[in-house]
Amino acid sequence: MNDTDTLLTLNQAFYRAFADRNYAAMDALWARHLPVTCLHPGWMPLRGRDAVMQSWRDLLANPVPTLIRPRHAAVQLYTDSGLVICEEVLAESVLMASNLFVREDGAWRLAHHQSGPLAPQARVDRPRPPDTPPRRLH
Amino acid sequence: MNDTDTLLTLNQAFYRAFADRNYAAMDALWARHLPVTCLHPGWMPLRGRDAVMQSWRDLLANPVPTLIRPRHAAVQLYTDSGLVICEEVLAESVLMASNLFVREDGAWRLAHHQSGPLAPQARVDRPRPPDTPPRRLH
Repeated sequence: MNDTDTLLTLNQAFYRAFADRNYAAMDALWARHLPVTCLHPGWMPLRGRDAVMQSWRDLLANPVPTLIRPRHAAVQLYTDSGLVICEEVLAESVLMASNLFVREDGAWRLAHHQSGPLAPQARVDRPRPPDTPPRRLH
Repeated sequence: MNDTDTLLTLNQAFYRAFADRNYAAMDALWARHLPVTCLHPGWMPLRGRDAVMQSWRDLLANPVPTLIRPRHAAVQLYTDSGLVICEEVLAESVLMASNLFVREDGAWRLAHHQSGPLAPQARVDRPRPPDTPPRRLH
């Protein structure tokens, strides 16, 4: 399996661990020694493995599961890091996620996750035309 | 200057180019050959240098400048990439940004930017306690 396929598989495993509320599977995905961070939607940044994994422990312990379906994942590779960008389809909203993987001890591990809402008017299967930027943005 | 200081300086330059509506400065920051992507808040992903730079051309041409003040930038370094996470303070909101830099031809260049809103209740200068996850998340 090449690196692109590996990262797509790991990205799927990330969302599967979420859907299954499988903390052990989630834990196995994240880097052990390299710096890790997580920007859950709306949250202040979580820095370091302890804080990041505690957030997943709490989220996955939620008795009401959060159903998230990843869609349109695409990989961009650098030398020792790779970024997967995908949509996260929830019941009533769509988020955009950046999942940064890094090589650690020869394996690809998750180092950073950020997810944030897609504006309702942007929910089309193509980039927003550059001549119509939304308001209230950067 | 070490890599951490270099990335902090480049991160400042990114927001200065934005504030100054200086397209040439913005253009100089982004990678030339390696894959680049940008997730402006709410937007569909922009993939590839042409799409990303066109978005900046349009945003920086806006006659009403977007005043953004970066705050609390912190760097995490990997072998060939480095991530800067910071707050983006706007007039009426605060966003969280991930700015991914990669080494290209011996220089650090911006490869990816994602920015998304911080929830109003999260705007404290510390991470949200892990035992009080916000609702409607992940």
